[in-house]
Amino acid sequence: MNKEHVVIIGGGFGGLYAARRLKNAPVDVTLIDRRNHHLFQPLLYQVATGELSPADIASPLRHLLKDQANTRVLMAEVTGFDTANRQVILRNGTVRYDTLIVAAGAGNHYFGNDHWGQWAPSLKTVEDATEIRRRIIAAFEAAEVASDPDAVRSWLTFVIVGGGPTGVEMAGALAEIARETLRHAFRNINPSDARILLVQSGDRLLPTYSPELAAKAAAALEKRQVEIVTGARVTDLGPQGVIVSHAGQDEAIAARTVLWTAGVKASPLGEALAEATGAPLDRGGRVMVEPDLTLPGHPEIFVIGDLAHFAHQGDKPLPGVAQVAIQQGQYVGELVKRRQRGQQMPAFHYRDKGNIAVVARGAAVAEVGRFRFAGLLAWQLWAYIHLVHQMELENRLLVLVQWVWNFFTRSRSALLITNRQESAQTSATMDAAPGRWVYDTGLWPRLE
Amino acid sequence: MNKEHVVIIGGGFGGLYAARRLKNAPVDVTLIDRRNHHLFQPLLYQVATGELSPADIASPLRHLLKDQANTRVLMAEVTGFDTANRQVILRNGTVRYDTLIVAAGAGNHYFGNDHWGQWAPSLKTVEDATEIRRRIIAAFEAAEVASDPDAVRSWLTFVIVGGGPTGVEMAGALAEIARETLRHAFRNINPSDARILLVQSGDRLLPTYSPELAAKAAAALEKRQVEIVTGARVTDLGPQGVIVSHAGQDEAIAARTVLWTAGVKASPLGEALAEATGAPLDRGGRVMVEPDLTLPGHPEIFVIGDLAHFAHQGDKPLPGVAQVAIQQGQYVGELVKRRQRGQQMPAFHYRDKGNIAVVARGAAVAEVGRFRFAGLLAWQLWAYIHLVHQMELENRLLVLVQWVWNFFTRSRSALLITNRQESAQTSATMDAAPGRWVYDTGLWPRLE
Repeated sequence: MNKEHVVIIGGGFGGLYAARRLKNAPVDVTLIDRRNHHLFQPLLYQVATGELSPADIASPLRHLLKDQANTRVLMAEVTGFDTANRQVILRNGTVRYDTLIVAAGAGNHYFGNDHWGQWAPSLKTVEDATEIRRRIIAAFEAAEVASDPDAVRSWLTFVIVGGGPTGVEMAGALAEIARETLRHAFRNINPSDARILLVQSGDRLLPTYSPELAAKAAAALEKRQVEIVTGARVTDLGPQGVIVSHAGQDEAIAARTVLWTAGVKASPLGEALAEATGAPLDRGGRVMVEPDLTLPGHPEIFVIGDLAHFAHQGDKPLPGVAQVAIQQGQYVGELVKRRQRGQQMPAFHYRDKGNIAVVARGAAVAEVGRFRFAGLLAWQLWAYIHLVHQMELENRLLVLVQWVWNFFTRSRSALLITNRQESAQTSATMDAAPGRWVYDTGLWPRLE
Repeated sequence: MNKEHVVIIGGGFGGLYAARRLKNAPVDVTLIDRRNHHLFQPLLYQVATGELSPADIASPLRHLLKDQANTRVLMAEVTGFDTANRQVILRNGTVRYDTLIVAAGAGNHYFGNDHWGQWAPSLKTVEDATEIRRRIIAAFEAAEVASDPDAVRSWLTFVIVGGGPTGVEMAGALAEIARETLRHAFRNINPSDARILLVQSGDRLLPTYSPELAAKAAAALEKRQVEIVTGARVTDLGPQGVIVSHAGQDEAIAARTVLWTAGVKASPLGEALAEATGAPLDRGGRVMVEPDLTLPGHPEIFVIGDLAHFAHQGDKPLPGVAQVAIQQGQYVGELVKRRQRGQQMPAFHYRDKGNIAVVARGAAVAEVGRFRFAGLLAWQLWAYIHLVHQMELENRLLVLVQWVWNFFTRSRSALLITNRQESAQTSATMDAAPGRWVYDTGLWPRLE
């Protein structure tokens, strides 16, 4: 006779920790993901800024779960659900389940302007990170060969939309690249002339953090000449730059590089689940879950992580952070195990272990319980936490080596263009129309 | 007054070592490359097989040359030459030179069947490596979900065309992936069932090595169940597999993954040079150079590395290997410096430091002068050489960490799909037509 078949959708923190908790449980587990790897999201911005390589923070799911004999990994795309027949519908085929754990996460949200994505990439996948890395390098390269001063300025202007942790981390890293990493690397331009704007719609950075800490982060960024514009909205966006609406005024900012870290939108699988089960969604498309993370009337279906809206603790829903996803994954894994033994489980309760965000090397802000601190100590705590949470020992080793190295050398040896060179080309010479400029030895005197 | 302007085309071994040799020389140097990084080609196959990350073997050219004040790096594509006016023609603009060093290298050659490239990628760029890595993973993933045994077999059949060092290294690494790295990672298939064929047109592997050593390499591969087919040519190739013509017989081999390491063809810039200067080309499109690596009648133009055909030493032209490019780069840099001082330089003479090829971890074959040896010692020598020749200390460190780690764990944590997931998807479910297969708990008994 068949064992209970637990199907987990998504190999992020939630799905992976749920699968891990089911190791040695008397169930068959199938983890479905369209990617072949688990990604350590919190460090993705370091790939986008050339500090780490994708493989340093990504681990093949099969490798992570290969010693878990009751678990199989299926690389496939889920398109919907047939909850009446307890089936997950794949692009090619179906998977039957007894228990379903949906941890499909969230993507980025351009507030109804999805076409903005082509000019303002966001940071969710490894491809996003290498594309952003490419754009940053290509911008400096283009500035180096641009003849017209306005063109140079717009290539050296970087706009980051969104003042949450990712926006703050990207702004700090960009400042470091411009002011330190690329120093002496160019001959026509001075990279530290780069202008870095951080546009935040709210009245302060890091809205989920305490005001004191947010202020410290802002100060640390300003010390690195990052221009912070709060209470400002991006009302339009294109290849030439952005329109920022601030205090009723519209300002056009010419910028060739715009990065998007603003809105978050739940995976479309949330809607698919709502259609199939009638479960309610919140405005962000997240599924409203019961205190035990199941769907109303569907004790066999769980939703966890960024896709879940958990409103049974505190006055606002739990934030879409790794900690929540990890604890929910562990909770659901445990619950499934206990059910097998006919035992009960209390409602899910989130233990907030604190917030921490990095501004730059040696500078972070943290709040743990009642404690709030900033600077080197906070940064060391951040580094420690992010090292020990790496899935593989090898990754810890590699990340550590590069952090130590870069801390002292300020270098970023992963600052590479590894997408197809055509695209790199185009951007690098975009504003140099054929014949419009001649680069020859006559230029040299201009450099002395 | 302007200094002599030395323009170097290509940031490979030849171009980079030429630029380095000109450090502190009283000349202005411009290094032009369409990529932003120097690539350590000899280890590229380890990126393709998930052992290393691109950034471990690639270094930004600007970073490598940033302390060389007389040198600038220009990221641009060279389309031709106007030697009468001493100009290099870029896709957008021109660069005037006094001395020109062309080190544009070589690409792969499909013997007039360039369309084969879409099914049988070759290994020249970082993109090639990550694409090959993607195909290798996707093949095992597709085999895992394929229902039809023939489909499984063709997904688990890997054909490597070309028995030179790269082909041997790829075959050995693939064997390791299938027999060791992926062990226990799948549930429906056994990765070690994978069939790995190495097709060589000549009568033995490693034709440029001594027969004894080639035999040792072949034995080491066969020990790892690599099927070696010598005296065989691939006469046709497509998405379903290859046609191998062997001893007058045509055999069709169903294989979803084919890798191309056979022919090499010089950069098209060779032809452009020939048109501009009347310099003769060999059949491979390489430029025949004078004993001092200049072009006939053009003492101001040098051609080095894989693009150069140097026929003034020994009975055959110098091989297209890193050692030759490095020594020629150093030679030309030195020659340019001496010319400034009105001094002469003897003709270029290549010092062969030996050959070495890796079959698998702990197994390599080497010949240094009269000495020939194989096994662990040869492998250690290989590892040492490839570490010390890394351009950056950090890369040495990273590569060493991963080699040591992987040597003991046999893991390959860089075995990731980092291209756009769509493509990964398609291959992963290619032969699973909608509805044709149903993957459910009913499958589980099949696994016991």
